[in-house]
Amino acid sequence: MRIAIAIEYNGAGYCGWQSQPSGCSVQDRVEAALNDFLAAPGQPISVVCAGRTDTGVHAALQVAHFDCAIERDEVAWVRGVNAHLPHSIRILWAKRVEDEFHARFSAVSRTYRYLLLNDAVDTGIMRGLVGWFHLPLALEPMRDAANLLLGEHDFSAFRAAECQAKSPVKVMHEAHVERNGQLLIMKFRANAFLHHMIRNIVGELVYVGCGRHSVADFQRIFAGRDRAKAAPTFAPDGLYLSDIEYDARFGLPPTRHRLPF
Amino acid sequence: MRIAIAIEYNGAGYCGWQSQPSGCSVQDRVEAALNDFLAAPGQPISVVCAGRTDTGVHAALQVAHFDCAIERDEVAWVRGVNAHLPHSIRILWAKRVEDEFHARFSAVSRTYRYLLLNDAVDTGIMRGLVGWFHLPLALEPMRDAANLLLGEHDFSAFRAAECQAKSPVKVMHEAHVERNGQLLIMKFRANAFLHHMIRNIVGELVYVGCGRHSVADFQRIFAGRDRAKAAPTFAPDGLYLSDIEYDARFGLPPTRHRLPF
Repeated sequence: MRIAIAIEYNGAGYCGWQSQPSGCSVQDRVEAALNDFLAAPGQPISVVCAGRTDTGVHAALQVAHFDCAIERDEVAWVRGVNAHLPHSIRILWAKRVEDEFHARFSAVSRTYRYLLLNDAVDTGIMRGLVGWFHLPLALEPMRDAANLLLGEHDFSAFRAAECQAKSPVKVMHEAHVERNGQLLIMKFRANAFLHHMIRNIVGELVYVGCGRHSVADFQRIFAGRDRAKAAPTFAPDGLYLSDIEYDARFGLPPTRHRLPF
Repeated sequence: MRIAIAIEYNGAGYCGWQSQPSGCSVQDRVEAALNDFLAAPGQPISVVCAGRTDTGVHAALQVAHFDCAIERDEVAWVRGVNAHLPHSIRILWAKRVEDEFHARFSAVSRTYRYLLLNDAVDTGIMRGLVGWFHLPLALEPMRDAANLLLGEHDFSAFRAAECQAKSPVKVMHEAHVERNGQLLIMKFRANAFLHHMIRNIVGELVYVGCGRHSVADFQRIFAGRDRAKAAPTFAPDGLYLSDIEYDARFGLPPTRHRLPF
């Protein structure tokens, strides 16, 4: 049978989602906890996620699925697996799903949030949980630039060299920038994202906000599809995968990230 | 001359604000950094804060003052002292003030926020930064109970045995409870607080929210002034000192905590 799970994790202590030989990834920890919980060594479980996150990137809501011959009730999956996980990774729910459900291929959209402290002094409280830029950022040009991202585009200007996606064309449904005191909260929802795409967009939006690039520069760089012309990749610290959208027919539990922004 | 400073810190790694022989406190670290920065061993600096925080309690905005014979410009105080502090403690500003200014006695009010995750599963991302209660909490009775705290009252029901305050009578100006998804955000502003007062109030509000105490129980316990009748002290994790109010005549920089809630 196939089980879908929602996972929250603090990415600061992990080398990203994707399994690594050293075992340092979130996927490695989740699979180890599932296998410890089931205690069925002959049938190791492997997990497929909706959105692979980089080193240091957090997930307030990641969705994954796995296949398993052993039946457990949904509450037991949550409590049992959490008991085998480090505290920085939590299973939020588990749900038996039909075999056609695929955490990655069934996902209709992914949402990421970026929390950016815009102040002269870096954070004392939220280290690893917030990005930081020390020069004043103007909201309006950042919003104008973010609006240019909406719709179907070739996002090659914001694509990492090592990106394995088949196509650089993605559809951006939302791209917001809001200010709450010295904090900027950015939200991006797209059908899918390229490798480093949001951190590259955030880097370029910060260039626009501090006046290093104009909105016209942003537009030209975006249209030019040349990664080398855009701003450097921004820090992973403030980046959170915060929602995965699926068709209602899969009957997944209503999901809501648990972030205070 | 007298210098006022604003300080942000993550209390998770410290034994509270107040200086201890072992040197584990925030005050110890701030004083050590000031003395390292000034490099004047004959004139050790000691610091007085507006609100002493417990072990594990954070300050998004603490204010303190110290006296010093050596002159530095205000930006140098911030950058120089931060260079000598651990990353979990940050000086946000420094300002020369008149000698009558006293971080503790001049403070007109203190504001604390409490961030509480109300969900079946504890946090993976914000460990140490959010309190947790697993049973559903009803907002309306919590708000009704919080409203009873407003005005001048004897807060002995919420006072720790070891509290050194001269009087248990304080004036509560604000006592709010709001919900944002699975998070509850509580805000308390008073002229001053007793030892453990907010954590004890939060514990009692949680009892009301989950139905273990009624609003009438809360009212009777509060009026009865007997600490032994009230709920246990809640965890320090979600508690943040977030504002200190002073008379405008002191000319302190406009202060705003840098929390996303």
